Amino acid sequence: MSFNSFGHMFRMTTFGESHGAAIGCVVDGCPPGIPLRAEDIQAHLDKRRPGQSRFTTQRREPDEVKILSGVFEDERTNGQVTTGTPIALLIGNVDQRSKDYAEIRDKFRPGHADYTYQAKYGVRDYRGGGRSSARETAARVAAGAIARKVIPGVTVRGALVQLGPHMIDRTNWDWGEVDRNPFFTPDAHAAAEWEVYLDGVRKRGSSCGAVIEVVASGVPAGWGAPIYAKLDQDIAAAMMSINAVKGVEIGLGFAAAAASGEDNADQIRMRHGKPEFLSNHAGGILGGISTGQEIVVRFAVKPTSSILANRQTVTAQGEDADISTKGRHDPCVGIRAVPVGEAMLAIVLADHFLMHRGQVG
Amino acid sequence: MSFNSFGHMFRMTTFGESHGAAIGCVVDGCPPGIPLRAEDIQAHLDKRRPGQSRFTTQRREPDEVKILSGVFEDERTNGQVTTGTPIALLIGNVDQRSKDYAEIRDKFRPGHADYTYQAKYGVRDYRGGGRSSARETAARVAAGAIARKVIPGVTVRGALVQLGPHMIDRTNWDWGEVDRNPFFTPDAHAAAEWEVYLDGVRKRGSSCGAVIEVVASGVPAGWGAPIYAKLDQDIAAAMMSINAVKGVEIGLGFAAAAASGEDNADQIRMRHGKPEFLSNHAGGILGGISTGQEIVVRFAVKPTSSILANRQTVTAQGEDADISTKGRHDPCVGIRAVPVGEAMLAIVLADHFLMHRGQVG
Amino acid sequence: MSFNSFGHMFRMTTFGESHGAAIGCVVDGCPPGIPLRAEDIQAHLDKRRPGQSRFTTQRREPDEVKILSGVFEDERTNGQVTTGTPIALLIGNVDQRSKDYAEIRDKFRPGHADYTYQAKYGVRDYRGGGRSSARETAARVAAGAIARKVIPGVTVRGALVQLGPHMIDRTNWDWGEVDRNPFFTPDAHAAAEWEVYLDGVRKRGSSCGAVIEVVASGVPAGWGAPIYAKLDQDIAAAMMSINAVKGVEIGLGFAAAAASGEDNADQIRMRHGKPEFLSNHAGGILGGISTGQEIVVRFAVKPTSSILANRQTVTAQGEDADISTKGRHDPCVGIRAVPVGEAMLAIVLADHFLMHRGQVG
Amino acid sequence: MSFNSFGHMFRMTTFGESHGAAIGCVVDGCPPGIPLRAEDIQAHLDKRRPGQSRFTTQRREPDEVKILSGVFEDERTNGQVTTGTPIALLIGNVDQRSKDYAEIRDKFRPGHADYTYQAKYGVRDYRGGGRSSARETAARVAAGAIARKVIPGVTVRGALVQLGPHMIDRTNWDWGEVDRNPFFTPDAHAAAEWEVYLDGVRKRGSSCGAVIEVVASGVPAGWGAPIYAKLDQDIAAAMMSINAVKGVEIGLGFAAAAASGEDNADQIRMRHGKPEFLSNHAGGILGGISTGQEIVVRFAVKPTSSILANRQTVTAQGEDADISTKGRHDPCVGIRAVPVGEAMLAIVLADHFLMHRGQVG
Repeated sequence: MSFNSFGHMFRMTTFGESHGAAIGCVVDGCPPGIPLRAEDIQAHLDKRRPGQSRFTTQRREPDEVKILSGVFEDERTNGQVTTGTPIALLIGNVDQRSKDYAEIRDKFRPGHADYTYQAKYGVRDYRGGGRSSARETAARVAAGAIARKVIPGVTVRGALVQLGPHMIDRTNWDWGEVDRNPFFTPDAHAAAEWEVYLDGVRKRGSSCGAVIEVVASGVPAGWGAPIYAKLDQDIAAAMMSINAVKGVEIGLGFAAAAASGEDNADQIRMRHGKPEFLSNHAGGILGGISTGQEIVVRFAVKPTSSILANRQTVTAQGEDADISTKGRHDPCVGIRAVPVGEAMLAIVLADHFLMHRGQVG
Repeated sequence: MSFNSFGHMFRMTTFGESHGAAIGCVVDGCPPGIPLRAEDIQAHLDKRRPGQSRFTTQRREPDEVKILSGVFEDERTNGQVTTGTPIALLIGNVDQRSKDYAEIRDKFRPGHADYTYQAKYGVRDYRGGGRSSARETAARVAAGAIARKVIPGVTVRGALVQLGPHMIDRTNWDWGEVDRNPFFTPDAHAAAEWEVYLDGVRKRGSSCGAVIEVVASGVPAGWGAPIYAKLDQDIAAAMMSINAVKGVEIGLGFAAAAASGEDNADQIRMRHGKPEFLSNHAGGILGGISTGQEIVVRFAVKPTSSILANRQTVTAQGEDADISTKGRHDPCVGIRAVPVGEAMLAIVLADHFLMHRGQVG
Repeated sequence: MSFNSFGHMFRMTTFGESHGAAIGCVVDGCPPGIPLRAEDIQAHLDKRRPGQSRFTTQRREPDEVKILSGVFEDERTNGQVTTGTPIALLIGNVDQRSKDYAEIRDKFRPGHADYTYQAKYGVRDYRGGGRSSARETAARVAAGAIARKVIPGVTVRGALVQLGPHMIDRTNWDWGEVDRNPFFTPDAHAAAEWEVYLDGVRKRGSSCGAVIEVVASGVPAGWGAPIYAKLDQDIAAAMMSINAVKGVEIGLGFAAAAASGEDNADQIRMRHGKPEFLSNHAGGILGGISTGQEIVVRFAVKPTSSILANRQTVTAQGEDADISTKGRHDPCVGIRAVPVGEAMLAIVLADHFLMHRGQVG
Repeated sequence: MSFNSFGHMFRMTTFGESHGAAIGCVVDGCPPGIPLRAEDIQAHLDKRRPGQSRFTTQRREPDEVKILSGVFEDERTNGQVTTGTPIALLIGNVDQRSKDYAEIRDKFRPGHADYTYQAKYGVRDYRGGGRSSARETAARVAAGAIARKVIPGVTVRGALVQLGPHMIDRTNWDWGEVDRNPFFTPDAHAAAEWEVYLDGVRKRGSSCGAVIEVVASGVPAGWGAPIYAKLDQDIAAAMMSINAVKGVEIGLGFAAAAASGEDNADQIRMRHGKPEFLSNHAGGILGGISTGQEIVVRFAVKPTSSILANRQTVTAQGEDADISTKGRHDPCVGIRAVPVGEAMLAIVLADHFLMHRGQVG
């Protein structure tokens, strides 16, 4: 049992509040001997870092990571490697304009966790959302950077496939495009249209949701396990644990409900001496175990509730009130969820790689 | 870490293969003093039991449950109660026509877990799907019947809201209707139309998917926990672990991606002296913690791959082959997933009730 | 979290009460492809089974084990092997003279768990000790038989080294002697003397304690892990979880407190091209990780409180009372703890083998 | 599964190496609303801190703790309280004379974990013992300080009862004496004699072991759980996980093996309307559950292997070598293990309090 840990064997424990002293995580179970420097992690954090385009919050969060433990610079080897002991990562909080948050001390912001934290604990760090802030996802991205190194043969990539009501045209899919637009979308045409759309959302102080697709290539057949350590189960848990996520699907996902058995099941043929699936409606997972195809997962992010419009709420003292969020917020928090989704999938896969190796050898 | 256990504190471990000696589960962490008889569990198992209409498999599986431990008939009290020790439940397998399954020994059924189990373990009990058979869900339903008794103030109900491509009309929703049709659907009009549709599917040896909605009423605000024991995270894991499930969503779910921040966030007003949400797009969960509203979850079940049509596959010996499934299979496995989804939600809620009580008192 | 499960990766969950329908366990995480038949397990259970000499209880408990799941008789292989799925083991209870136990319904037996179970749960299965009965250890022995097969290069052997106040002479140690006397002691001379001593204890309806030593050979250097999955930590937990155990020590154990640093530390020298320790005061574990030497653990078993003499106690109704245990009890429960201690050490080692393989490869 | 976490519900994850950037821990599962300031923790750390007498190492380790998360200074309350979210504690490492440790890079110190870490991981942070250093116990003491606040009705106290071969006279026991001598011993007479003895050990560069007794008062009947979350099992695990500990016993411990059933079992009588045990040979635990008496645990600490005398060892390159430890080491590491043992018992008890409240209410 663990409230703030994730993973079976490759296990991350995160801590920290948005405006506390620091956030961070402890990664336990990492294999030894893996080259790891802070720069390796920083590269991924920078992708999630706010303020990189006008479509993400303009808060200044350098998100500089320090490795406190679990690595060692051994002069007999070529540099710093993991030692098999817990890797503690620390990310300081610097842009703590706590005065900005005086109003939310007493009012519960609709769509945020203010009310539920107060109902559960009777006390909460209200500054910037405290523990419920999406700032916690920086720790996930940091741990995900380590996870990737545990499974070097696996590539994990994410992309925005829907912004608000607008979906991409999948025939335009180009992974190379993802890093060339501020949306992490693989459809250059959509990116162009979305700029206009999201500018409108941003200017009127509104927000919109998004759907992210994350794909892992290079996963061999056999990772995952019945019945309650299913690969898709752990992926669903991983994605649903991300702030603002309201839905997760694998492969065809909800569309599978409308398909026939004939159309849905992926047929198999021998190709070059080994079994090859003729389609991938399963999203690379059957019976909770990887098929050797690409793992394909999508998750839906709701629009942030931090918007300019006045919304009805109540105060901690039990009075009706209105609230409006001014200041620097993401018009679409789903954009920055792309590297977070990648990190979570990498963490699940690293975890299952180690578990599989443990049980099966 | 546990491959075949689910839950933090109210914890179920299931075992058994479709055509082995028996299936069952051990429920650990159940509070003491709860009245519990086999009949209480049997009532829920009977709802899942096959052969109750022409739309479910005609296999004979009486699914009679025995309680092996963890209860005690104390003459000083009014009957049999839980003792706080592990409750072991056993369900014998009786209709083991193992000869039916000779063909699948060597051929991997597309859409089933045959290939992945073989790839992972190098050996598998192929009879009836072995461990990957949906028969395992009987153990979930049994454990779920106990979970309901742990949280007597909570009502958990499920319903089919989509059959193949056909959705219900939500304005027809009547919980009373759910037990009056063979689909567990709350829309009487849809039930009538679906009979015709599913007869067609069944007669041509095909199959279709479904979407199930499960709703829990009576959950107080405050259950769940940041960050990796989120209530919605555990619900997503619970549902995605059910056989053939490919997607899970909470509240608005994927539709939230297309909503604006103004429309999506549930506003709050004081009503009768306490906060009341004016809508429930969140599905009763904010920041991983219950809001006090209804918990609303939907999951998509793919069409079973056990169909009459010839499908391309390969053999364990690495040769191309065709396969067709004759015999007694559900045209829509999603129907019998309704009581399974209910059970899983009840288990998650009982678990979080105990965890919340442990940490917060 | 798990009240009735043990192990990280090779994980056993036990269930059942002394006089309930059955006891048993579910072993999860076992590697696939390991030959396993009920007879393999039965051989170890028979060693623990009561009634084999006049020095153990004369209750008739055949302790016949059935494998319900997790193995498969595959005609393409040489017989029944594990499949990697949960192995459920069932041992029926047959000698249920429940009437014998009417008295202990209302009186708390001193030295037994009657009072504490009642204080905790408010209800208990008092028949034969219910869940707190040493009968539960049969499930451990069964799981231990499987664990041994997971680590075929490791030999785990146990021996009685002290009976009541009488210690063996270690210069007489002969492993071959262990199975030739009713005490599982390696000192033939002690065995002869102990017969006289224990006959006296038995005839006067008294009881005595014992110290058991368990030794594992063939464990390579490197199993175990810092800081809270230390090999010695898990061994201590394993042994202290056995009924009536009050102390555990590794290597020199408590005697190490009186040794000097010079005498205690095991020196090392190269022998045949690899490091060899010149002594084994550490009991084969340094820093929680195996050294490659023999793992040596001892644990102390208290005398059973089931004795003929009248003892002072109280009733559930809060009145003073006296109690005396007639009937068929072990004069020294420590004797039958030998195979239990072996099983627990085998389980810990199998678990750590899998964990080590998972993390380090 | 977790290599570096301890506890079920009140759960501590520690990280850090002796000479790395910092050590620390994350405490998860702590109830909300508990007043907690760094000073509260510091007081306990200072007790463990080295350099307080000539009998502990003269290394300068201020061990100043910072709370990074999980508390909140709420102006509406009387100060800083826990929020129910993870409490991260950081203790910087300041006295890093890494050059002192050049020799141990290549030589395995007998009795230390150098060889086993190298054998397991193939790499290790050799500076000051790295992860295997007793410095990690500072994190335990810090977490233990929080645990004490979770169970304010419980008092946990530790004392040295044996130094090298010299035991205290229990008739001299005076808890008030414990903080008046450099040994944390309750026997003033022993303290005087031990000064002479330990000065001799120290001056000749040798070391000795110790036995520590930790006692918890105020624990109600009912904490603990069958079968693998037994209170004594978790205590045994807690103590055996402390560096250099080789044995653990509860109540009579190993002496119970030599007692008769008549002498060992604690009889009960009604006193002032409730059951009272007439002795406490059980050490406050029966069947893994607390009896309401004092919990009494003892553990043995081996003499440190960091001694002046030349000892035989081998190098990482596989050559015979001699090694001698100069510099600032504790002649008896058991002394500073007293606050560590207290912390571990407090952690186990806080954990079981929460678990009991969760399951039983």
